[in-house]
Amino acid sequence: MLTLGILGGGQLGRMTAFAAIRLGLDVKILAPGDSGPASPFSGFAVADWSDPEVLSGWAQGCDVVTVESEWAPADLLAESMTVPPPIYASPATLHLIRHKGRQKRALEDAGLPLPPYVNCDSLDDAKAAAETFAYPVVLKRFEGSYDGYGNATCHAPEELAEAWDALAADDGALVEAFIDFKAEAAVQVARRPNGDTVVYPICLTEHRDHRCHAVMIPSGFSGEVESKAMRVARQAVEVVDGVGLTAVELFVTRDGDVLINEIAPRPHNTGHYTIDACHTSQFENHVRGVCDLPLGSPDLRAPAASMVNILGKKDSAINQASNIILNEPKATVHLYGKYDSRPKRKMGHVTATAKTAAEAREITERAVDSIII
Amino acid sequence: MLTLGILGGGQLGRMTAFAAIRLGLDVKILAPGDSGPASPFSGFAVADWSDPEVLSGWAQGCDVVTVESEWAPADLLAESMTVPPPIYASPATLHLIRHKGRQKRALEDAGLPLPPYVNCDSLDDAKAAAETFAYPVVLKRFEGSYDGYGNATCHAPEELAEAWDALAADDGALVEAFIDFKAEAAVQVARRPNGDTVVYPICLTEHRDHRCHAVMIPSGFSGEVESKAMRVARQAVEVVDGVGLTAVELFVTRDGDVLINEIAPRPHNTGHYTIDACHTSQFENHVRGVCDLPLGSPDLRAPAASMVNILGKKDSAINQASNIILNEPKATVHLYGKYDSRPKRKMGHVTATAKTAAEAREITERAVDSIII
Repeated sequence: MLTLGILGGGQLGRMTAFAAIRLGLDVKILAPGDSGPASPFSGFAVADWSDPEVLSGWAQGCDVVTVESEWAPADLLAESMTVPPPIYASPATLHLIRHKGRQKRALEDAGLPLPPYVNCDSLDDAKAAAETFAYPVVLKRFEGSYDGYGNATCHAPEELAEAWDALAADDGALVEAFIDFKAEAAVQVARRPNGDTVVYPICLTEHRDHRCHAVMIPSGFSGEVESKAMRVARQAVEVVDGVGLTAVELFVTRDGDVLINEIAPRPHNTGHYTIDACHTSQFENHVRGVCDLPLGSPDLRAPAASMVNILGKKDSAINQASNIILNEPKATVHLYGKYDSRPKRKMGHVTATAKTAAEAREITERAVDSIII
Repeated sequence: MLTLGILGGGQLGRMTAFAAIRLGLDVKILAPGDSGPASPFSGFAVADWSDPEVLSGWAQGCDVVTVESEWAPADLLAESMTVPPPIYASPATLHLIRHKGRQKRALEDAGLPLPPYVNCDSLDDAKAAAETFAYPVVLKRFEGSYDGYGNATCHAPEELAEAWDALAADDGALVEAFIDFKAEAAVQVARRPNGDTVVYPICLTEHRDHRCHAVMIPSGFSGEVESKAMRVARQAVEVVDGVGLTAVELFVTRDGDVLINEIAPRPHNTGHYTIDACHTSQFENHVRGVCDLPLGSPDLRAPAASMVNILGKKDSAINQASNIILNEPKATVHLYGKYDSRPKRKMGHVTATAKTAAEAREITERAVDSIII
């Protein structure tokens, strides 16, 4: 039996493990702590993954290793063994993607469409870039930002200076033109080491407080925008040499342009709808890709779907089954098994399939409203 | 967090556990041995479940207990504790269903349609019944038969005598008229302790060598047959007081009559298609039912679906990932993680959804043909 190692014990590792086990694989999971999502699996181990000996010992039993997050210690694992197992996303891909400046430069060098940006060494550079783009601009930390943390929209030089002090690193920060987009979207791409690729249909994404709130598919964009987005996403994943699942977040402008916002080298919140709505989920195609197995169809099984995140509504330990109010018969509820809830923490998601994306969205919103967690 | 206990560590326990964990429940599994399917779960324990102390100790941590099979020691568990947790299917339901004579009598007493049968105390009774029905008849063991084991089709008194010697127990055996059915079918029913019920649409089932080979849905039967079948199934589950998922296997005669073949007080092979094709799988509705949570929709997400079993093709330990040939992009492969294969052992199943059941069937058959396990 092939053994898949997963570095990371959160919801992405959990859902990847579900997919792998269903395909008959053995799964090992390593994480530095236990927050709940990986606890149902017998292959889950908690240990200090900053220790090379821990990493190399754990990886002995793995035929292939994948990471739940771009911040997992893939490079340390690769360095810690004479002959490490294949690691996907590869340390080189992760190196490229972790740093937004590097990521954007690589995509730009390949001729892919991006919002105008400048990698700035100093506040003066940043101010100059902002003058060129005209305010407002977005200042982004090069590394470590997520869900809106590490980004600041700045309307004037004083705000930019303040944000620079908070966000810039030794190598500076990134200034990006503020895109007055028509909508945000995402495309998931699965790829094997040999380059075989499948591209999921583009989905419409909605953010609230810089977090993914909802996804709808079909996206409602024109066929032209859809095919442009899928082409751009496929090319972007080739540029970063993504293996397994790579998610490409996009802006669609009022002129119908498609711009790459950012890339995640792993299954992504915007692709959770695929578990229930597609022939092959993003998690299964991630597993197939990293294990170098033939990829499954990314097409929808149902006419339309929607996904809405379940965010924590209060600070609490999760100890009441009555928290789970399952009163929407057509809502598929996925809870992540986290031990503790806190406001805005991602605790689960709900997917519905229906005749239209709008109908599916109504079901998911009603279901999520009724879940107090 | 609610903890669900599952007695039984085979594929039905495995798929029930998947559904429960996805709903955020904790899962404990107890089985007398480890054949593989439950090994991915941290809550899996192997122990002698014929020992009341083992059972009661294990069940201490369970808020509710379910059984993977009608032969799991539910009654021993109930007897072993002063205040046992709720057990579903209940020992009373299991008692009724385990014995085919009792099962049929209860259904007959409720006025439900069955093939003509007689519970026979002696071979003379059996011969008399066979004369009444006219040969061929089917002799069935009262208890312990499955997948064709324990049944014999008899064309003459000599065959009947031989079968009687092999199959009859102290309380005799059952003689049933041979039904020259048009087709076999199944209906899954999920029910809460309070009687709330959802009924899955009827599916067409095909058996080979007395084992479920394939399922197709929509069934292709007339609306009249479909609604009759769903009504009969619902009533049958009320008669046996099924809680959680109960599967009702049916014969559809050439005259369009619907006859109950047999009842299984648990998720059933004929309902595996629901994982990928329905808003709520049979396993999830089993979990919801036994945990007394609101039931989910049993409706199809996709226009049509088919499921085909993956049977063992050779004697072997499963040690090659290359056994899993995933070359049908729209086939969803479920492997059960069994350590060993042997000819005709149920090793997994494949589901496909498509525009028509025939199209889905072609995909599943091609996929299963390519999997050598």
